[in-house]
Amino acid sequence: MRAIDAHPPITAVREAVSRALAEDLTPLGDITSGLLPPDRTATAAFVPRVDGVLAGRRCADETFAQLDAGILLEWTADDGDDLAAGTAFGLATGPLASILTAERTALNFLTHLSGIATLTRRFVDTVAAAGAGTRVWDTRKTTPGLRALEKAAVRAGGGSNHRGNLSDWVLLKDNHLAVLAITDAVAEARIRWPARIIHVECERIEQVEEALTAGADAVLLDNMDADDVRACVVLVREAPQRCLVEVSGGITLENVHDYAVAGADCISSGALTASAPNLDIGLDIQIRQ
Amino acid sequence: MRAIDAHPPITAVREAVSRALAEDLTPLGDITSGLLPPDRTATAAFVPRVDGVLAGRRCADETFAQLDAGILLEWTADDGDDLAAGTAFGLATGPLASILTAERTALNFLTHLSGIATLTRRFVDTVAAAGAGTRVWDTRKTTPGLRALEKAAVRAGGGSNHRGNLSDWVLLKDNHLAVLAITDAVAEARIRWPARIIHVECERIEQVEEALTAGADAVLLDNMDADDVRACVVLVREAPQRCLVEVSGGITLENVHDYAVAGADCISSGALTASAPNLDIGLDIQIRQ
Amino acid sequence: MRAIDAHPPITAVREAVSRALAEDLTPLGDITSGLLPPDRTATAAFVPRVDGVLAGRRCADETFAQLDAGILLEWTADDGDDLAAGTAFGLATGPLASILTAERTALNFLTHLSGIATLTRRFVDTVAAAGAGTRVWDTRKTTPGLRALEKAAVRAGGGSNHRGNLSDWVLLKDNHLAVLAITDAVAEARIRWPARIIHVECERIEQVEEALTAGADAVLLDNMDADDVRACVVLVREAPQRCLVEVSGGITLENVHDYAVAGADCISSGALTASAPNLDIGLDIQIRQ
Amino acid sequence: MRAIDAHPPITAVREAVSRALAEDLTPLGDITSGLLPPDRTATAAFVPRVDGVLAGRRCADETFAQLDAGILLEWTADDGDDLAAGTAFGLATGPLASILTAERTALNFLTHLSGIATLTRRFVDTVAAAGAGTRVWDTRKTTPGLRALEKAAVRAGGGSNHRGNLSDWVLLKDNHLAVLAITDAVAEARIRWPARIIHVECERIEQVEEALTAGADAVLLDNMDADDVRACVVLVREAPQRCLVEVSGGITLENVHDYAVAGADCISSGALTASAPNLDIGLDIQIRQ
Amino acid sequence: MRAIDAHPPITAVREAVSRALAEDLTPLGDITSGLLPPDRTATAAFVPRVDGVLAGRRCADETFAQLDAGILLEWTADDGDDLAAGTAFGLATGPLASILTAERTALNFLTHLSGIATLTRRFVDTVAAAGAGTRVWDTRKTTPGLRALEKAAVRAGGGSNHRGNLSDWVLLKDNHLAVLAITDAVAEARIRWPARIIHVECERIEQVEEALTAGADAVLLDNMDADDVRACVVLVREAPQRCLVEVSGGITLENVHDYAVAGADCISSGALTASAPNLDIGLDIQIRQ
Amino acid sequence: MRAIDAHPPITAVREAVSRALAEDLTPLGDITSGLLPPDRTATAAFVPRVDGVLAGRRCADETFAQLDAGILLEWTADDGDDLAAGTAFGLATGPLASILTAERTALNFLTHLSGIATLTRRFVDTVAAAGAGTRVWDTRKTTPGLRALEKAAVRAGGGSNHRGNLSDWVLLKDNHLAVLAITDAVAEARIRWPARIIHVECERIEQVEEALTAGADAVLLDNMDADDVRACVVLVREAPQRCLVEVSGGITLENVHDYAVAGADCISSGALTASAPNLDIGLDIQIRQ
Repeated sequence: MRAIDAHPPITAVREAVSRALAEDLTPLGDITSGLLPPDRTATAAFVPRVDGVLAGRRCADETFAQLDAGILLEWTADDGDDLAAGTAFGLATGPLASILTAERTALNFLTHLSGIATLTRRFVDTVAAAGAGTRVWDTRKTTPGLRALEKAAVRAGGGSNHRGNLSDWVLLKDNHLAVLAITDAVAEARIRWPARIIHVECERIEQVEEALTAGADAVLLDNMDADDVRACVVLVREAPQRCLVEVSGGITLENVHDYAVAGADCISSGALTASAPNLDIGLDIQIRQ
Repeated sequence: MRAIDAHPPITAVREAVSRALAEDLTPLGDITSGLLPPDRTATAAFVPRVDGVLAGRRCADETFAQLDAGILLEWTADDGDDLAAGTAFGLATGPLASILTAERTALNFLTHLSGIATLTRRFVDTVAAAGAGTRVWDTRKTTPGLRALEKAAVRAGGGSNHRGNLSDWVLLKDNHLAVLAITDAVAEARIRWPARIIHVECERIEQVEEALTAGADAVLLDNMDADDVRACVVLVREAPQRCLVEVSGGITLENVHDYAVAGADCISSGALTASAPNLDIGLDIQIRQ
Repeated sequence: MRAIDAHPPITAVREAVSRALAEDLTPLGDITSGLLPPDRTATAAFVPRVDGVLAGRRCADETFAQLDAGILLEWTADDGDDLAAGTAFGLATGPLASILTAERTALNFLTHLSGIATLTRRFVDTVAAAGAGTRVWDTRKTTPGLRALEKAAVRAGGGSNHRGNLSDWVLLKDNHLAVLAITDAVAEARIRWPARIIHVECERIEQVEEALTAGADAVLLDNMDADDVRACVVLVREAPQRCLVEVSGGITLENVHDYAVAGADCISSGALTASAPNLDIGLDIQIRQ
Repeated sequence: MRAIDAHPPITAVREAVSRALAEDLTPLGDITSGLLPPDRTATAAFVPRVDGVLAGRRCADETFAQLDAGILLEWTADDGDDLAAGTAFGLATGPLASILTAERTALNFLTHLSGIATLTRRFVDTVAAAGAGTRVWDTRKTTPGLRALEKAAVRAGGGSNHRGNLSDWVLLKDNHLAVLAITDAVAEARIRWPARIIHVECERIEQVEEALTAGADAVLLDNMDADDVRACVVLVREAPQRCLVEVSGGITLENVHDYAVAGADCISSGALTASAPNLDIGLDIQIRQ
Repeated sequence: MRAIDAHPPITAVREAVSRALAEDLTPLGDITSGLLPPDRTATAAFVPRVDGVLAGRRCADETFAQLDAGILLEWTADDGDDLAAGTAFGLATGPLASILTAERTALNFLTHLSGIATLTRRFVDTVAAAGAGTRVWDTRKTTPGLRALEKAAVRAGGGSNHRGNLSDWVLLKDNHLAVLAITDAVAEARIRWPARIIHVECERIEQVEEALTAGADAVLLDNMDADDVRACVVLVREAPQRCLVEVSGGITLENVHDYAVAGADCISSGALTASAPNLDIGLDIQIRQ
Repeated sequence: MRAIDAHPPITAVREAVSRALAEDLTPLGDITSGLLPPDRTATAAFVPRVDGVLAGRRCADETFAQLDAGILLEWTADDGDDLAAGTAFGLATGPLASILTAERTALNFLTHLSGIATLTRRFVDTVAAAGAGTRVWDTRKTTPGLRALEKAAVRAGGGSNHRGNLSDWVLLKDNHLAVLAITDAVAEARIRWPARIIHVECERIEQVEEALTAGADAVLLDNMDADDVRACVVLVREAPQRCLVEVSGGITLENVHDYAVAGADCISSGALTASAPNLDIGLDIQIRQ
């Protein structure tokens, strides 16, 4: 699985790391590691305790760099690579006190983001087994302030990114459609935002029909069962224009295969970012000199 | 269960919300809700889909306030209160477009933080059933940038807060003790930080003995089984000074009862903040006028 | 011309105004207006010196609000409305010293953003006269740090927004296509970004053919003359899928009509944001009491 | 033309660039350039499409440095130097994807600031032709948030900086003088701000007389014609103290020569920063390896 | 003593207070005041323990406002007013817990800034007793990050502000004059910065002569005794132009009178901001209800 | 005297320096040093004018690094080391203009923080002479926004840090105890914050008794004379648990010896950070080449 594009923008990395370090060090610094002899150096190995997928490497790099430029990082894996339980994938060498001070911040990024990448990979692999070319999508259910990092972790896991935020594309959801007619809303949106995706949430097949007629670029089938999805897919494929079929709502590792087989183009799950458990990664210190 | 003190500092709330809103609105705003008639108003109800414990209310308040001062919030629950599946605990009334724009940001705070409070409560209730007065502790395994909010959510769930950060108190962990002798390190720490907790991680009962002799304020029993914990507790209780016994490492809802019965004062689990699934909460719009 | 959606996100307004006020007041404040009697109040009228289109009203509101909550603003126009030379469109009432202190910052926003809206409107009106439904598009050639405000000003002028930034959609430009084949790049982009616009810059009609075959959502005809554009439009309209035709490069008020008549869906011009002269607006003080 | 002092403070450069890059990359990064082979490198040349004056070089440097430390910049011109249409003045060498990602942000700084420098230079050259030693001044009509950069661009163009902001010196304008008498205001200002310029806006020659008597350091002749300016200059030169004569209001490239000949010390124009069209500069990529 | 202009810019107040509150509350809030009954309210009085001059009132206002909008502030004194030991000058009424949480932050501003105002006032009064119209000046020796607030406190004490920062005016100090000749440097500075004060540090009377001939606006007599100052003043007064005489270096409350009598226009002392002891002010709580 | 741990967190240094440089350079830069020949280099020596203790070296390092990476710093002393009047302890070599621009900012940090370290050292030495092992403590009476730096300066002076902020530990002061009974408050605090210091302010010996019975970890004896302190110390030493005795209120260099002899563990003084005069340090330029 390629991990190209899996890194978040460096601007987001820099800001998140700076905030996280300040959070852990203010106001007195690491009062425990200050007890260590300042000239003691060490090499520490990043070791996953379980199998998983790496994400967040740039955050770890940046954490050590911001704390102490004297620490050297060497990696044998990059975001999107598989991690094997017990096998080190990175080494940090430098002053022992600085390594211990940075440890938790670096690990908090790595474990959180690799947890997302790992869960995403499980969905991706399950879907791939269906042989249907279906993509796994995230949502906007991200941790406040960390969206850029979490969406990159989804990419590291082999998933794709849904809307980055509310300004990205038009997504007419049930609450909008309680006020607006699909036909009118799509037409109006097309005028205002000529080159943006217009995406319509549908709870019934009649809505899919209306969205297709209106010229929607994508339909979001919300909380439908696999049979209904299959029927909608047939309808969509018969339409003259390309229209993407997204399935969402109640997707689990158990049922995602069925939705893929039913022909959905994208299956989105808030769980990827909202409920992925951290991936257990440790930093094993090897004292030196 | 009282929820006193469960709110995070308002400064942390304000900054986190401002960052989260910018993240969801930059650069073009909510291009979908802009299609709605601007004079349409609504009332929306916060409704949990499952039972749980509320946390993050101030973040939701602040989200709506920062976005549109014309939205009125009314709550029937506060952080730390029980939420019943299907029963609304808050209402937002105001312009429909603004409510929909704020919805996801407000929910991302509420679901993430209530997820933490809810998992904490499960640990707290399990421990309470052991009748031992043991407290449930969080760790520094928090989401980067959100520590103040997550630690408040743990308090909302009835848990207590371990160190806020590295400057809080002295915690001599295995990696420090590979370089420093317990006796020397405790003595040196006491001189430098006269009124701070000195806490020693112990993997063997001999280390507990040495820590007690050195005058440690707390010992962290790492990855011991319940029987070993019990033996350490006996040792600690025989010492002249008060010394807190923390148990950590591999704590689960299944085994936490045993550790509580074994007499630990505090049982800490990184899972509270690092792996709590979001609590499913929705915002149900009731269109008005 | 409706101006709905013409306001920028409030988060962007708040941050830009706070930065601008600090820039004008640091470190000693307004040392001239401090000479005025502190109890003197006034009403001041915003008056355009020339005809134009309003943009930036929320920035002006926010400037006065951040400086002195005792100033009352009353507006008779909103972003997107026409302004007539010499006719006031807003009044500020409050302490004279505060009004004079805020004056330049508020006007700098209003004149800069209204300048953009006014130039956009001229393009929009010229294109509309062609009767072709063509939209006027901005570009990413915006003033660093002010993109959200400037893109809103384009909307206020009746224009539409092209990409908000590099993360918005895929735009394969000449420099990408020097390395990548159109067919391969579109296919790869479709896999990675299933629901994002894939847009291909074309300098020759053969590239348009290749882009259509590859399934591009939009083509950008760069620096073509109107006849070539017309030929490309014919080609695009014959394709089975919907594909947007953007014309860019060397667009002026003089030639934009020809491109519209040639059938382009969108005509984009960097000049809207990069070279619009400020709209001359003054704040006329009427001393009171 | 010397360009000494033409660089803005590095603190302002760093902050403006960081904001601009985040604006263009949040939240998903450059999704198009991510399609390029990551090991492809290139050299790109900054080439002006028209003649002009360079400003903003440090912003371009900082943009590439913040994005990718692996890009090497080589310049043959610095801020204040003449640029000849078609002649490259800088080269960027490094990863192709990074160069394309940084391109627009770097160019937005260079084209905006060089536009200001170029327009300033036209005013400066016109004034110099009058042989009068008159200086060209900017105003506070700058783009919100970019004042430090724009004032440096004016210096790069050979102009001088008027007040940096409201805390810089005392400038009694018509709205102050509607409430305060010139004599009283100058006297009071002299007491409060002993070593700051006291500058008085005058619409009539009688006001110039009063300002001179009061001991003003400078007079601003607002919207006077060249003959009136000449009369005022005579009056000022006869006064015992040095007093600077500024002319402002309605200054254009057409009439600026007349005002210079009339003897003004400084001629200020808001157009330098508020209405300078961007200087057209491109980044021509030369693919390598 | 008038206190006009004594307030710092609100933008500086807002930012400094927000930073200070975060500093005192992160990450867990006020864990002591959280023990108080949440419905307990109180009125607290700001009471100076010694006589002094008030500065920093807006910071105190902002501190309470940012922490808890439910606290009402009532003041009987404003910045620049005399405070009498034991006499309350302000009351805060609201939730007891919030008042105690805000107490130290508000007092840190008030005591620091009032300390500066009080020391300034002592210098001002001593100088005034000399009957010479001499002004007391601060310097750039301010606490990093607080210059705007400290310079306002000097004004509250009746002093005046020297340069706000390095961009304010030209001050040729000994280290510049080791490289540049006075005559050349003044001439060059006059060209580059036509309306800015040109100020020359002089250690010998010959330098004063050269500075006068060069047309300097002000001379800084550094570390001269009062007799030398008198001789320089005579020289300056004989010159045709107005030139300000500043005395600096080793100024104390003991010798400041002599320098004033010697005829200096301004006497500057870094001690005003760099070494003023805090003014002792307490917040006396009166429990209520 | 060891200076271990005397450095502040690098995150706090970086942010404070960036703010201070912007404060001194915005918007036009150092307009005086811009007159210097740009190729002139120099070496400058940091020389204390009086004896003292160094603090703030990292801030000086960071100031030069942020301004001009071409300046080389060489130090012969670090935070906590003694400085002898007239003996240089550091050299800066590089462009003369950059050195002069950075000078005041670097010195403002060094003189302010070394002033704190030096006053602290005087207290520490006086207490040490009492031979009692008593520690000197700071308070929360710090300059707003600089707490991390000032607390590090206290450590550099040989002192210890009291609470970092309100979230650090529980300190029940008189205003809390007017509402809460000591016994109840300590018990409640112990439940909520199991491993945090619980500290009780006592004005009478009966309160010390109650605090000991309640199990407090520390007592703060406020404004007691040395005899009363001695009596309290006796009481505390007889208690079964360890309890720290802090003395505070009215501590001066004159009476601190008596309190140390009386047996206090810690003596705290707000004067260390709130009223320490700056240490006079100069930067002596040696022109070169």
